Amino acid sequence: MISYLEPTIDVNRNILEMEYAVRGPIPLRAAELQQQDKSIIFCNIGNPQALGQPPMTYYRQVLSLVEDPSKIQRERQLKDLFEETPFSDLKGEDFIDDDILAVSENIIGMMKTGMGAYTESKGVRFIREAIAELIDNRDDYERSGSVRADPEKIFLTGGASEGVKFVLDLLIAEKNDGIMIPIPQYPLYSASIKKAGGVQVNYYPDEDNGWAFSRAILDDALIKAREQGVNVKGIVVINPGNPTGAVLSEQSIDEVIQFAKENQLVIIADEVYQENIYTGQFTSFAKTLGDQKVPLCSLHSISKGFYGECGHRGGYLEVRNPPKVQGSDLDFVDLLLKQASVSLCSNTAGQVLTYLMVNPPAQGSQSYARFIQEKRQTLSDLRDKATMIREAFTQMDGVECFGETGAMYLFPRLNKLPEGTTDFDYCMALLEETGLCTVNGSGFGQKEGTNHLRIAFLPPKSLLEEVLPRWIEFHNRYIAG
Amino acid sequence: MISYLEPTIDVNRNILEMEYAVRGPIPLRAAELQQQDKSIIFCNIGNPQALGQPPMTYYRQVLSLVEDPSKIQRERQLKDLFEETPFSDLKGEDFIDDDILAVSENIIGMMKTGMGAYTESKGVRFIREAIAELIDNRDDYERSGSVRADPEKIFLTGGASEGVKFVLDLLIAEKNDGIMIPIPQYPLYSASIKKAGGVQVNYYPDEDNGWAFSRAILDDALIKAREQGVNVKGIVVINPGNPTGAVLSEQSIDEVIQFAKENQLVIIADEVYQENIYTGQFTSFAKTLGDQKVPLCSLHSISKGFYGECGHRGGYLEVRNPPKVQGSDLDFVDLLLKQASVSLCSNTAGQVLTYLMVNPPAQGSQSYARFIQEKRQTLSDLRDKATMIREAFTQMDGVECFGETGAMYLFPRLNKLPEGTTDFDYCMALLEETGLCTVNGSGFGQKEGTNHLRIAFLPPKSLLEEVLPRWIEFHNRYIAG
Repeated sequence: MISYLEPTIDVNRNILEMEYAVRGPIPLRAAELQQQDKSIIFCNIGNPQALGQPPMTYYRQVLSLVEDPSKIQRERQLKDLFEETPFSDLKGEDFIDDDILAVSENIIGMMKTGMGAYTESKGVRFIREAIAELIDNRDDYERSGSVRADPEKIFLTGGASEGVKFVLDLLIAEKNDGIMIPIPQYPLYSASIKKAGGVQVNYYPDEDNGWAFSRAILDDALIKAREQGVNVKGIVVINPGNPTGAVLSEQSIDEVIQFAKENQLVIIADEVYQENIYTGQFTSFAKTLGDQKVPLCSLHSISKGFYGECGHRGGYLEVRNPPKVQGSDLDFVDLLLKQASVSLCSNTAGQVLTYLMVNPPAQGSQSYARFIQEKRQTLSDLRDKATMIREAFTQMDGVECFGETGAMYLFPRLNKLPEGTTDFDYCMALLEETGLCTVNGSGFGQKEGTNHLRIAFLPPKSLLEEVLPRWIEFHNRYIAG
Repeated sequence: MISYLEPTIDVNRNILEMEYAVRGPIPLRAAELQQQDKSIIFCNIGNPQALGQPPMTYYRQVLSLVEDPSKIQRERQLKDLFEETPFSDLKGEDFIDDDILAVSENIIGMMKTGMGAYTESKGVRFIREAIAELIDNRDDYERSGSVRADPEKIFLTGGASEGVKFVLDLLIAEKNDGIMIPIPQYPLYSASIKKAGGVQVNYYPDEDNGWAFSRAILDDALIKAREQGVNVKGIVVINPGNPTGAVLSEQSIDEVIQFAKENQLVIIADEVYQENIYTGQFTSFAKTLGDQKVPLCSLHSISKGFYGECGHRGGYLEVRNPPKVQGSDLDFVDLLLKQASVSLCSNTAGQVLTYLMVNPPAQGSQSYARFIQEKRQTLSDLRDKATMIREAFTQMDGVECFGETGAMYLFPRLNKLPEGTTDFDYCMALLEETGLCTVNGSGFGQKEGTNHLRIAFLPPKSLLEEVLPRWIEFHNRYIAG
């Protein structure tokens, strides 16, 4: 018997109604099964190191040293001693490369106040400068006519998610303010728009055409939204795609830019998978934009690529052509800064890893060969695993998977589900029978009447070799009804 | 000549109107002066390591090892070798204590997926368990009749700020929803309430009575707000106070609890300075609450105390008696979790440091003596510096400073400013003349007609010895007009 009045409370309904499938019912059921000692393969989330992808040695050795800089000098002393008289049981490679010691010392020097102090709200200046330089080099700005990146318009953020939230919270001013997002989409976007109290305006890349965009697709979504009184203010593009893995052509990117220009939209370009390209080629929005005056917010992260440092929560937001704010002397970047100030700063370990992401070891340095070998290994493993899963799809009746292979995901269409069942039922049954935890297509949004699932191609090959035949068997039995 | 139409945009007015004095005009001017090679003493923010407070060796050695666990085994090998034949130039203390190696190994084992993987959205389970245990021990739950902390109601967050934002974003459902905050307050609260679109309801602790609360003070604020149609839903208490440094008596805490109980408010207890007590005694809200069914959200952080690990962005939010949500099967904790899920998780370095904060080295372990010595040194330095500054106030005409000494701040009242000048003018002049960067009282809010400033007592003693006489001289000259 309860002897007190149970308090109830009315809360922000936007949060109550917000959905986030990547950590929704299927993963929750998977966690339950795991607690019952069932063997579960978590392919619901792009969390590479949780599935055995090793961290880059270079990154971690530097991070370890900047957290305890007294070990830099000691390592040098130990190496000198070892060179004179090798220690038994230890080999040369057990010591840290000279260039790593130098880089670590350099970072500590440039941090000025160390890892334990709040940094500038935007992040440490030398890291923002290094990011700007990376962007310029990546986009070959001299040749391509693109504009140089400006360190003052770069924000270091706690993963890309924080940057997305800063931008959407700022853009959404009224209840009828809308943001265009691709369907399917990564649910961070739908959730953040919902939380900010705006309108999600769906547009539908052409699945059968490799998820390409066309002007008609974008116009169609915009016109429908405007008919409903929605004031569309921004457009989100995820390239390479999440959940589709599709890689956008330069033509598709240009379509978006012209569309945004004519309709005065802010482009939010989620480019966190820019190093995860297995077929096709990555082109950045910044490069395609060149000197056109369209507001662009690009996002990148240390969580993906070959680095996979999800847990460290690092990333950046780069802004170009920030619009002036109506009724104010401030511009878009000033107000992003105001938001960042209230959070004080992003975490220093994430900032340092972001620096290392844009500053790999120099060619010819002692640690270069190992770095490249590890990078290649991780990326070729990912490619192989994507290929294995795509190959399995060909043996599943009515399964089609479109687009180039990018990001860490495949998003096959399930054309032959039994009458009255959905992709949610399918994914739940797949989990129960094989231990494979995926996310159903409706968690990301999909064209009405279609069914999909998203699988992150991250588990070790040996696990895939074991589970894929069981999935094929499950699939063909399941769709037979 | 500009050849294109300058785009303008309407943005979220709540963000446009949001203020954040701690990084406002005075610190911005200080940064400018510093760039002109003026020597500036940054006392505007509680950022201890930026002002030379050393990090705790124990924390950093562990963090360094968990980022690069291969060094644990190597350190053991090196120590064995060193024990057989000491290396020239190196001493025993240059090697890492056995208990630190063991703790690091243990953490890596308990993390399961390492530092590079996303953790559970709430944070790693073993860390939440350790936090619960710390809270129980701190509050002596068996004797005091308080209820045990529940790891499922604990969230690891990116500093305390993130936890505050989760709570306020959830509580504020309508434009007339109000949150009571003490005046003066830490501007995170006013800014977050503003951003969430709610109403800031001021209450005024009694400065001349050591910033104590009374029922009348709280009732008065509530009645006034209700008269204006505000639906008051929560009350923020900062203990020890920021910016006042005042330490609340158990009686003041109990006043708040009874007040919240009768008026069905959620208590948000910011207890990040619980280890920064130089006079008086800290009592937690959880302990005073006992088994009373009042919703309580308590916050703690690795940024303050004697640890000062601001840059690593770690902390936790502990919830008690989460209310059920109207029109839903969910409760307050479920919806906090939903928000945390969208951010994926807080950073792992911050999580590990939070674990170390609640798990200091065991008494009698090899590293214990150094840990205690460093802790005492930092806390006694802070105490000495607060005393030095308080002593200086006695030599400044018309300066009074009330309350116990806690947190990292003093918040003196300036009773004799020249006619027509404000504390903003005073702080700006103080900065220009002495290089001392403080924040004016109006940045935190203050009773109308009063003037204050906040100074973080963090600079090295030698700097204070140098600047305090200049401040006294400046002050007595300034108020003479």
